[in-house]
Amino acid sequence: MPERPQALFAMTPENVPRVFPPRVLARLRESVDIDPARVVRDFADPALRDVLARTEILVTGWGCPRLDGAALDAAPGLRAVLHSAGSVKGFVTPEVWRRGIAVSSAAAANAVPVAEYTLAMILLAGKDVLGARDRLRTGRVFPGWEIVPGIGNHGRRVGVVGASRIGRRLLQLLRPFDLRPSLTDPYVDEASAAALGVPLLSLDDLLRGSDIVTLHAPATPRTRRLIGRRELALMPDGAVLINTARGHLVDHEALIAELRTGRLTAVLDVTDPEPLPPDSPLYDLPNAFVTPHLAGSQGNEVSRLGSVVAQEAARLVAGEPPAHGVDPAVLEREA
Amino acid sequence: MPERPQALFAMTPENVPRVFPPRVLARLRESVDIDPARVVRDFADPALRDVLARTEILVTGWGCPRLDGAALDAAPGLRAVLHSAGSVKGFVTPEVWRRGIAVSSAAAANAVPVAEYTLAMILLAGKDVLGARDRLRTGRVFPGWEIVPGIGNHGRRVGVVGASRIGRRLLQLLRPFDLRPSLTDPYVDEASAAALGVPLLSLDDLLRGSDIVTLHAPATPRTRRLIGRRELALMPDGAVLINTARGHLVDHEALIAELRTGRLTAVLDVTDPEPLPPDSPLYDLPNAFVTPHLAGSQGNEVSRLGSVVAQEAARLVAGEPPAHGVDPAVLEREA
Repeated sequence: MPERPQALFAMTPENVPRVFPPRVLARLRESVDIDPARVVRDFADPALRDVLARTEILVTGWGCPRLDGAALDAAPGLRAVLHSAGSVKGFVTPEVWRRGIAVSSAAAANAVPVAEYTLAMILLAGKDVLGARDRLRTGRVFPGWEIVPGIGNHGRRVGVVGASRIGRRLLQLLRPFDLRPSLTDPYVDEASAAALGVPLLSLDDLLRGSDIVTLHAPATPRTRRLIGRRELALMPDGAVLINTARGHLVDHEALIAELRTGRLTAVLDVTDPEPLPPDSPLYDLPNAFVTPHLAGSQGNEVSRLGSVVAQEAARLVAGEPPAHGVDPAVLEREA
Repeated sequence: MPERPQALFAMTPENVPRVFPPRVLARLRESVDIDPARVVRDFADPALRDVLARTEILVTGWGCPRLDGAALDAAPGLRAVLHSAGSVKGFVTPEVWRRGIAVSSAAAANAVPVAEYTLAMILLAGKDVLGARDRLRTGRVFPGWEIVPGIGNHGRRVGVVGASRIGRRLLQLLRPFDLRPSLTDPYVDEASAAALGVPLLSLDDLLRGSDIVTLHAPATPRTRRLIGRRELALMPDGAVLINTARGHLVDHEALIAELRTGRLTAVLDVTDPEPLPPDSPLYDLPNAFVTPHLAGSQGNEVSRLGSVVAQEAARLVAGEPPAHGVDPAVLEREA
């Protein structure tokens, strides 16, 4: 076996065996020399000085300490950061880019479960399945067999806000269904939308013309309360708002006021604040379905992130560019 | 326009405009001469004697009266029954087959929403999303960020019981996901299962080796209580049973006993009895999610059934065989 470059884990240590279970760790170790028992929590830790000095690749994850100038000085041979989670914003500093270190992220793999949760909620919300379940449970009255107009997933209009990784993955997943998706995104042009197979609309037109609106935009100063009172009012009667992105995107006071009228339904995996205070009306409103920020990678889904890192390590060692390289210019407008 | 054959609706009259909204009705009328205001509720109705005598095609639906010898005597020119719903068992008698009348059903289109509901529930059950929502709503405690083993949709094993139209459609829908489906069906051989892209297992092996078991078998004497105490005991800890087929398939006393231990979770769109009595423990058990038999075509989804009938009418008039002909031999083992 040729000499493998030195690599080092930098993440919450308890997560290492979950993100890198034995089969995934074995694949990673085919490319790099890495010890799952040695995990950086602090780049100044004297016990790690020697290994850091030899480290070429950092395998990062949730809980990675900030990669500032001092941290990078401790690892002068570092040439790549392979992140086994979503955004690298929390720990990658400008100093990383200045030193020309390649950064790759498993954000695409992290998009998979969020898009799956969203698809499931779109299919159920189209028939008010969760509402029907709550009413049956509470009222114990079985509805009749009449055909109720206004529900159903045949030709339902689904507005996707944001062609992020999750938004794009969702658009792919929506293809086998008789749904009519559309997209709004200030960074996408007509040609790119056409390549995604969807009409590109302004946010207002999308809100007016969608039975279901699902948010996949990043939390930036520009997107704070993107969906406020005015925007909610544009949505047609009976429409559904799904938020799996960030609570930051929605004016929750306005949302609560609109939900109280019974005109709209909301499916919220994220809220503002998060968690909600115990007296939030969102817990009890019959047309609000709140889940505790679980749409992202959970349980065995985190090993999908580890698999991406193992693939990236293999590419790196083979002299290929990373498949999921992070571009600092694009990073600015991401979550 | 060449002369179009006489057709007649035979179904619950209020459903005609829902199953055949204007655009779908217009397509149907391109092939046949049919009046949406004239609907058979009783084949002995004297007001319909003349039109029945000329009728070549019956467009049936939910609420169609039985097609017995007397009914067929009233429509001696009848050559086809195009059913705008699922099973024709309730009204097609052996006399229909004896007279060589072609029968077509929109059961394939009716399979679509059931498969969609099932897919959505598989994706949510894999992460216990509905349980997490209930716990958050009741307890108002936000769970932590630990990675919980045993949940997640990465590599989850999904056992499909029955390669019915719904079972097959579900297997198609499962393809884009990192799930591992398997199949059990006494009428399917290894080659057909391979063509469906899944391993064929015995029911017992499927129950032992699945994280999620979903029922798509017909209600026949042979399938009564197919899933009883012994079968439930084979399912691994934490497994989920989904039933969108018929309550008939499951021994509900045994299911309740198993759910009370907390070992399994159930998602039930159908029950036995249906509706459940108001004191059924299934309403309150935290690991039972009961919906009121709504997975089938609802709201706008019924117009998908009308579209199938319009296509079948066009084929018939063009001298082509029906795309969804019902075979009386196969009918015996269907729901």
